[in-house]
Amino acid sequence: MEKTNKELRLRGEEVKVFCPATVANVNCGFDTLGFALEGIGDEMVIRKVTTPGVTIELITGEKLPMEAHNNVAGVAAMAMLEGIQADFGITMEIHKNIRCGSGIGSSAASAAGAVYGINQLLDTPISNLELTTYAMKGEALASGNEHADNVAPCIYGGTTLITGYAPLRIIALPPMETVYVGILHPHIKIATKDARAILPKNVPLKDAITQAQRLAGFVASLYEWDKQLFVESIQDVLVEPHRKQLIPHFDKIKTVSKEYGCMAFGISGSGPSMFAFAFAKADIDNYLAASKAYYKQQNLDVDTYSSRIANEGCRQVP
Amino acid sequence: MEKTNKELRLRGEEVKVFCPATVANVNCGFDTLGFALEGIGDEMVIRKVTTPGVTIELITGEKLPMEAHNNVAGVAAMAMLEGIQADFGITMEIHKNIRCGSGIGSSAASAAGAVYGINQLLDTPISNLELTTYAMKGEALASGNEHADNVAPCIYGGTTLITGYAPLRIIALPPMETVYVGILHPHIKIATKDARAILPKNVPLKDAITQAQRLAGFVASLYEWDKQLFVESIQDVLVEPHRKQLIPHFDKIKTVSKEYGCMAFGISGSGPSMFAFAFAKADIDNYLAASKAYYKQQNLDVDTYSSRIANEGCRQVP
Repeated sequence: MEKTNKELRLRGEEVKVFCPATVANVNCGFDTLGFALEGIGDEMVIRKVTTPGVTIELITGEKLPMEAHNNVAGVAAMAMLEGIQADFGITMEIHKNIRCGSGIGSSAASAAGAVYGINQLLDTPISNLELTTYAMKGEALASGNEHADNVAPCIYGGTTLITGYAPLRIIALPPMETVYVGILHPHIKIATKDARAILPKNVPLKDAITQAQRLAGFVASLYEWDKQLFVESIQDVLVEPHRKQLIPHFDKIKTVSKEYGCMAFGISGSGPSMFAFAFAKADIDNYLAASKAYYKQQNLDVDTYSSRIANEGCRQVP
Repeated sequence: MEKTNKELRLRGEEVKVFCPATVANVNCGFDTLGFALEGIGDEMVIRKVTTPGVTIELITGEKLPMEAHNNVAGVAAMAMLEGIQADFGITMEIHKNIRCGSGIGSSAASAAGAVYGINQLLDTPISNLELTTYAMKGEALASGNEHADNVAPCIYGGTTLITGYAPLRIIALPPMETVYVGILHPHIKIATKDARAILPKNVPLKDAITQAQRLAGFVASLYEWDKQLFVESIQDVLVEPHRKQLIPHFDKIKTVSKEYGCMAFGISGSGPSMFAFAFAKADIDNYLAASKAYYKQQNLDVDTYSSRIANEGCRQVP
């Protein structure tokens, strides 16, 4: 007789995972700083099976390749099974809530959710750092290079700092408890390669120094929880001036964020989503409503999300 | 009858101050990161007098201008007296042990010592941050621009991070207790303006990102006291590749530092001094002896100092 899903879960052969959306390239932290969002994310079901290999059984919410080797979750899972020399296989369901190409870590959620889920099924789980290296293989399929900007916060939760890739170094930064996050997702497409191509090869040395000071100040502000330093530091002089050209009405929407009391604003990942920080939920909610109304006047649809920084990354759900 | 020095000190009208040498531009922290050295520094005597203004009574150890407005300590003192609207004047003695132009904060020690000393004579002392702004006026006389790279660690002690100048923001970073410091001062002159001129106006974006990651990693390593991260982070991809050309045998001396177990090496300030870090005093001492011998073979005199990072900056001495 076939086992029911519930029976499988009780026996530890199946897990259901929530994998959060994430914001990467956080202002001063291009290629470095990311955080996980609360309540926005995908769900995945990961099952351990005796047949080796990875099979994707179901994808809902988005049209994505069903062949494991063409799917970021599939590729990440395959990399992990190979890396740990698994004597079993995996089947998975992917239930997408994060829109592909929105700039809040859609592919990262799939890659991270897959490896996190597999880890839950192991007798001896591996470290978050190792999980990240496997999830990066999935990201490489999506974007052409192995980066951890989104998968790190998706796996670790909270705010993560990547300080290097050789060796991979991820710091889980102290939490910023009192920060509310707004996400604005205008319905336009920005190809990651265009977002990369618009960046200059060289930047002024003085801007490089300023950006390093901002990032260092941001890190210190979290350890000290120094609100004023936090606000002064979370700025971007290197990347935003170039990439903002890809996002309609960016300057206006940024200015409005200040009018509504937000103390930080920036591009999420390589866009088109943008994020805002405020110390009060009402400020974020009012700002999101106002900017949505503004974009509507300009005949541009946007999705908005009011959230917080999630202390937890991927997690099992019932 | 004239009061003796001892009587004046007891009555709080005279202080003797030790003002430490400092290392600025610490690798990943160009224009940002500095630390104070233990046991290497100048002494100053600061006296409160009824006649307004600043008079320099004695300078020993170096030939420096005696006119207050031409002397970094004098300029810093004058700026402070004006800023606090003092109804008294100051006379000072400056006893230099730090060689001018050595790159370990000689002018900063004079400027910082002056304002620190005056502060000790006030009924209501001002903050270290404010003291730094006055000391920066002295630095401007020496180098042409108001920078806090050396005066901040000289006043605060320990390791300081400057995250911005508008407003001035200084973070006193957590101490790195177990680090030993070696200083090598080859007897050559490097003009600050030449050290500035050799820097490129523009740098590759990827190097700017790497440097920001290094600095952020360094800051996190101190808060976490993560030795491995500390070692990985304290590197300089932006400035050292250019400035090292001004220092004879730099690459050789850097390579030797690794052979002797040092885990960091870099230019101090704008040179010509260099610093090395090790986790054992013997490693530093052996390294200093070896590099001194090497430089001697090359017919170049060097002074060497074996030190630690001073937790305290300027301080009163008997």
